[in-house]
Amino acid sequence: MPFMTDEAAGRLATRSDAPVLAVDIGGTKLAAGLVAADGQVLVSDRALTTLGPDDDGDAIWERLHALCERVLDAVGRPAIQGVGVGCSGPMRWPEGAVSPVNLPAWRDFPLRQRLIEAYPGVPVRVHNDAVAVVVAENWRGAGEGVSNMLGMVVSTGVGGGLILGGRLIDGASGNAGHVGHMVADPNGPPCGCGGIGCVEAIARGPELAAWARAQGWRSEVTEAATTKELAEDARAGDKIALQAFERAGWALGVGIASSIALCDVGLIVVGGGVSQVGDLLFEPLERHLRTYARMGFTQNARVVRATLDQNAGLVGASAFILAGDRYWSAD
Amino acid sequence: MPFMTDEAAGRLATRSDAPVLAVDIGGTKLAAGLVAADGQVLVSDRALTTLGPDDDGDAIWERLHALCERVLDAVGRPAIQGVGVGCSGPMRWPEGAVSPVNLPAWRDFPLRQRLIEAYPGVPVRVHNDAVAVVVAENWRGAGEGVSNMLGMVVSTGVGGGLILGGRLIDGASGNAGHVGHMVADPNGPPCGCGGIGCVEAIARGPELAAWARAQGWRSEVTEAATTKELAEDARAGDKIALQAFERAGWALGVGIASSIALCDVGLIVVGGGVSQVGDLLFEPLERHLRTYARMGFTQNARVVRATLDQNAGLVGASAFILAGDRYWSAD
Repeated sequence: MPFMTDEAAGRLATRSDAPVLAVDIGGTKLAAGLVAADGQVLVSDRALTTLGPDDDGDAIWERLHALCERVLDAVGRPAIQGVGVGCSGPMRWPEGAVSPVNLPAWRDFPLRQRLIEAYPGVPVRVHNDAVAVVVAENWRGAGEGVSNMLGMVVSTGVGGGLILGGRLIDGASGNAGHVGHMVADPNGPPCGCGGIGCVEAIARGPELAAWARAQGWRSEVTEAATTKELAEDARAGDKIALQAFERAGWALGVGIASSIALCDVGLIVVGGGVSQVGDLLFEPLERHLRTYARMGFTQNARVVRATLDQNAGLVGASAFILAGDRYWSAD
Repeated sequence: MPFMTDEAAGRLATRSDAPVLAVDIGGTKLAAGLVAADGQVLVSDRALTTLGPDDDGDAIWERLHALCERVLDAVGRPAIQGVGVGCSGPMRWPEGAVSPVNLPAWRDFPLRQRLIEAYPGVPVRVHNDAVAVVVAENWRGAGEGVSNMLGMVVSTGVGGGLILGGRLIDGASGNAGHVGHMVADPNGPPCGCGGIGCVEAIARGPELAAWARAQGWRSEVTEAATTKELAEDARAGDKIALQAFERAGWALGVGIASSIALCDVGLIVVGGGVSQVGDLLFEPLERHLRTYARMGFTQNARVVRATLDQNAGLVGASAFILAGDRYWSAD
C-alpha cells in the first residue's frame, strides 16, 4: 500500500506547483512515488520487478504501470508536471529504450515511449539508476551546492555519476559516470563487462564475499554468506574478512584517485549497500586514495558518505524534471 | 623576427573584428602571436624562456613582454580584443598565478596581473598549456565539432584536457584533464608527482628511453638517447625498443579506457612529440585499449591523432577569448 504522512498530504494540498511522478527500476525492485517541487517524496510504493522467469516484458510493464497508478490514486490523482525515471542500464539514451543487465525480459524495451503513452502531455525523462542516485545526492544530499562531484553507488555493481561545472555530465551516449568500469588493476581479475581489473570486478558486494570464501573464509558453510556477515566477521577480527574490505577499499581508492586526476572533482560521495559497512571500507579506501592522489589539487578532494535513504533514486529521478537546467541536457 | 605572410597581412587589414594576442609558455620556449577571429595565426614569434639559471622571474617576464610587443609592432599595433594564454602548470586558476614545474623562477608568479597591466581594458585569460592545445584541437583540429572529447599531449610529460557537453571542463580548481596522473598500474613505478604508476610515469618521453636503457638498449652509448633514436631502432626491429613503445602504449591504453568509462568521451585526440612516432605507439595503444574497453559505448570511442602544428598552443590560447562561450567558464 502507498504510504503518505499527514504532513505530506497537507503539503500536497497547499502547493501550487505540480508534483513529479518518479520511478526507480532495479533488477529486483520497482519503486514509484510523487515528489514535490522541493524534492520531498509525498507518497511512494514498491513492488517486485519480476514474479518469476516466465514474466515477459509486457508483464513487467503492466506491473510498473499499476504501481504508478496506485501512487497517483493514493493522493487523488493530481496533475503532474512530468515523469522522471532512473532505470538499471544499459540503455539507449535519451531515447529511453532500456536493456537492464539483471532484467533479461527487457531488451531495448521502449520504456520512455510506454510512459509517454500512459502519461501524455508532460515530459518523460529516463536516465541510469545510479545517475539518479548521484543527482539526488547533488541536489538534496551530501553534495548539495557542490559544482564538481563524483558520486558512487557500491552495491551489487559499482555505478556512479559525474557533476562537473554544476551540471550532470552525460557524455557522448548518456553513459558518463561508469566509474565501476575504470581500470583499478590492469593485471586484475576479469570483469563481467568483458574487461580486466575494473573497479567493479574487485569492489562489488558479491565479489567481496566470493573472494573471502576463495581464501577459506566460512568455507564450511554451504550457503552463500553476504557482505553483512563478512562485515561482522571483520569487526570480530577475522583476517580474511578484513583483507576483503582492504582489497575493495584499494580498488575504490585507485579508481577515485584516477577520477580526481581526470575531472578535478572536489568531492566524492559514496553510497550503496556495501558502503553501509562504514569504516571497514572507508578507512582502507581513504588510505589507498592518499597513496595515489599526491598532487595539490588531488589532495584537496574529500570523500564523504551519501546521506539520503532508499528514496534517493526517486528524488534523483524527479530532479531530471524539477531541476532540468542542471540535470537534463537532452531536450 | 616575427613572420607574417602577405595573405595574413591582407586579412588583418580588411577584417573588422580585432585579433587576440595569444601566448604559449613552456619550460624552454615562449611563443606569442596574433590570432584572427577565425583562428588563423596572423603573426607569431618565439624566444627562449630562460637564458640561464640566474634569470629571475622579472627577467623572464620582461622577455615575454618584449616578445608580445614585437608581434604587435610587426603588424602596426592593431587593437586587440583580449589576451589568451596557455602556460605550463600548476597554477592558481582562474587567478593566473603560475608555478610552472620546469620554471623555478616563477613561483606563484602573477602572470595574469602583469598582462592586465601591460594590456589594459581587455580580458586576460590564463589556462594550462596542455588544455590550450586540446582546446585548439577541439576548435579547429581533429576534434572540430565533437562535443565529448579527451585530448592528450604525450611529450616530456603527459597532459590533457576534457571537453564534455560541448564545453571545456575546468573542475573544482581548474585542473581537470590531468590524464597523465590517472593510475595506469597501481603496482607500477613511482611518478614525479609523488604517486605510483601514473600514466605519465610510464608513457612520458624521457621514461621510454630511460626504461629501454635500463633493459640494456644502447647501454654502450654515454649520452642520453632520445625518443627519436628509440623509434629508429624499434623500426629496425630492436626488441627492447619495440617493448618500450609497447609498454607506453599499454599505459596510455589503460588510462584512455578508464577515461572513456568515466566520461563517455566519443573521441580521443592524441598529440605531442612522442605521438609523432606514429604506429609504433598507436598500434599497442589501440590494442590494449580494446582489451580493457569492452562495454558497448566504450567500444564505440575512437582514437585519432592531433592534426594541428606547433601553433596549436597559440590557437587554443586565443580560443579562451574568441570562443569563450565554450572554452572559458570563469568570468
